[in-house]
Amino acid sequence: MGTIAFLTDFGRDDVFVGVCHGVMVAIAPRSRVVDITHSVPRQDVRAGSIQLARAAAYFPGAVGVAVVDPGVGTARRALAVATARMIFVGPDNGLLPPAIAVTGGAIAAVELLEPKYFRHPVSSTFHARDIFCPVAAHLSRGVDMADLGPALDCTTLVALPEPKVELAPGKVTAEVLFVDIYGNVHSAAPGDAVRDWGLGTAVTVQVGRREAHAVVATAFGQVAPGRLVVYEDSSGGLSIAVNAGNAAVQLGLAASDVVTVAAGWAA
Amino acid sequence: MGTIAFLTDFGRDDVFVGVCHGVMVAIAPRSRVVDITHSVPRQDVRAGSIQLARAAAYFPGAVGVAVVDPGVGTARRALAVATARMIFVGPDNGLLPPAIAVTGGAIAAVELLEPKYFRHPVSSTFHARDIFCPVAAHLSRGVDMADLGPALDCTTLVALPEPKVELAPGKVTAEVLFVDIYGNVHSAAPGDAVRDWGLGTAVTVQVGRREAHAVVATAFGQVAPGRLVVYEDSSGGLSIAVNAGNAAVQLGLAASDVVTVAAGWAA
Amino acid sequence: MGTIAFLTDFGRDDVFVGVCHGVMVAIAPRSRVVDITHSVPRQDVRAGSIQLARAAAYFPGAVGVAVVDPGVGTARRALAVATARMIFVGPDNGLLPPAIAVTGGAIAAVELLEPKYFRHPVSSTFHARDIFCPVAAHLSRGVDMADLGPALDCTTLVALPEPKVELAPGKVTAEVLFVDIYGNVHSAAPGDAVRDWGLGTAVTVQVGRREAHAVVATAFGQVAPGRLVVYEDSSGGLSIAVNAGNAAVQLGLAASDVVTVAAGWAA
Repeated sequence: MGTIAFLTDFGRDDVFVGVCHGVMVAIAPRSRVVDITHSVPRQDVRAGSIQLARAAAYFPGAVGVAVVDPGVGTARRALAVATARMIFVGPDNGLLPPAIAVTGGAIAAVELLEPKYFRHPVSSTFHARDIFCPVAAHLSRGVDMADLGPALDCTTLVALPEPKVELAPGKVTAEVLFVDIYGNVHSAAPGDAVRDWGLGTAVTVQVGRREAHAVVATAFGQVAPGRLVVYEDSSGGLSIAVNAGNAAVQLGLAASDVVTVAAGWAA
Repeated sequence: MGTIAFLTDFGRDDVFVGVCHGVMVAIAPRSRVVDITHSVPRQDVRAGSIQLARAAAYFPGAVGVAVVDPGVGTARRALAVATARMIFVGPDNGLLPPAIAVTGGAIAAVELLEPKYFRHPVSSTFHARDIFCPVAAHLSRGVDMADLGPALDCTTLVALPEPKVELAPGKVTAEVLFVDIYGNVHSAAPGDAVRDWGLGTAVTVQVGRREAHAVVATAFGQVAPGRLVVYEDSSGGLSIAVNAGNAAVQLGLAASDVVTVAAGWAA
Repeated sequence: MGTIAFLTDFGRDDVFVGVCHGVMVAIAPRSRVVDITHSVPRQDVRAGSIQLARAAAYFPGAVGVAVVDPGVGTARRALAVATARMIFVGPDNGLLPPAIAVTGGAIAAVELLEPKYFRHPVSSTFHARDIFCPVAAHLSRGVDMADLGPALDCTTLVALPEPKVELAPGKVTAEVLFVDIYGNVHSAAPGDAVRDWGLGTAVTVQVGRREAHAVVATAFGQVAPGRLVVYEDSSGGLSIAVNAGNAAVQLGLAASDVVTVAAGWAA
């Protein structure tokens, strides 16, 4: 029984996700479809790529199908990419590479051009239903990736710019990858930077010209309610939270902003 | 392993949908429950009927259970209706007929009156849990529809008025069926009307006294961002979108409004 | 094939729930994970405990894993608790006891201390992924609860205060447990109180100094649109609704408020 991990920006208010499930179940009745999330901000390929990469490590052996695809119906390629631990299916627009990297890097890639594995008629506006999900379902049943279309040079995949990260002794500057539902701010920097400074270290969080005091911690409850903590998050990244509060709101931070964390409290 | 496709207006903030899953799994542990959507606007039978009909084609062989049921606990009948491709279970209030039509038309119908297939005690306010979902689960296990209650004349099912559609040479007037999560406006008219006018044809979209320029296209990216396209959508209907924008907001359209699309640009 | 019933306050906008599914599927590929809800208000243990208890009766034989855990990473215990009908897994913070009571009461409990059944490395901030869901998946595969850690005295579980309920002849005063998505107000009182008064009985609903007229009914449609009904809800509790309206808004009631229902209409 294969597992298909599914991520889109379709939301669940409409029937799009349900229809895709129906298409996959009909092709691969013995596979299991697990929803990663369908709440990627509409057409935000970068946000989708970050969410997919965060989840991919937890689906070993699965087929990952991801669709955030503002270019649907245009010339962008449709891909399947194998790594050591997963096969990913989706558009060639930068959505897949971070997840590919997290699961071991690309071993092989094909362009999805074999109509035998599509749903027909193929629409111009809903390739999730007609191309990506059918192909993912066929892969989960054991269809060989090589049958899906011509091989691609893995180095030709469209990739988005890497998020900014600068590591210096006692100082980390990094882009905000995303803000989670608790308002915790997840940066692109690795968490071991602050882990090395030691639990309880006083740090200064800088956002533009504003500065705030925080403490290195491993759990939110280690500081008083309303206080800032800097911590290695559950994905191994450097994150900022407020105990029983919302760090993104308190610091005025959103995805793509830049934040600096420095050891010691500013005067 | 049977498939049960499930649609309601319950939302997922409450435990209603989870409880229904639990009830179905307990009765039919080898069946699979797929959520179409649970975000039908509260008690909007017409919107539910449209969403169910849009999704039904993608669940061949499944049992479809749909519950948007403002009349729960009153005298409205509870139904199971077989078509060539599915069996539908739900209230007799107009929710099922469009999906019945899409999957080949009613072949047989019964009124759900056999308490053996209900969950007990049967509440007055939650027939999804106590009648519709238990019956759907039993059907997915192979229970014969005839055992569920007395046969009904299929022509007696409650049906909602058909949405307005007027087709004339070079001009289509139709009711808006729904607006999707991208703000695309889906009309009740078939998409082949504009397909025949040809890709790239200039058209005028009229909403009341307001007029807007659009172009017949197959993909949003065929026009500049912010521009209107009229296209055959992925369900074969005539829809209106804005590339990288929200057509419903731009045109001031919502479900049940009437829109006209005419070939040529008004002066 | 085991069933795992899953409830959290994580929402579905983030990948947390999807990641937990991935972790459980990898450990117990033949089990089925059913989402009760993930929309418990953030870190509201009491609300989570009520939702879990409402749903538990519909998952006989399942493992219930529930995570609303503001104390994650602190000294609060992690638990597995067996009842006659289910095994529950979650934090020892008051979340589980109402569901334990609904499913027959605690028979045995253990503290989750055996790292063999955890996911490693165990983070400080995501015990759902690293402890609770892995343990639930192992239990659904048949791992013996006694292997998970040392036995606990069931009477030592942290419990939240019982909601207020006062029953007098012709008068019920009770705390509001929750408001559902329709705006129906669900109280902590049992529904049989008003059932005994009889269908159609005129009652007065008191909220602070405000009073409103209502009628005992079994279905919303038994009163005119906009009118209040008091009824035994589908879980057997005493609830208040407005036919085709929102009782919580109309009465100004929210969770934890107190409402009185008295037989007869005030002058």
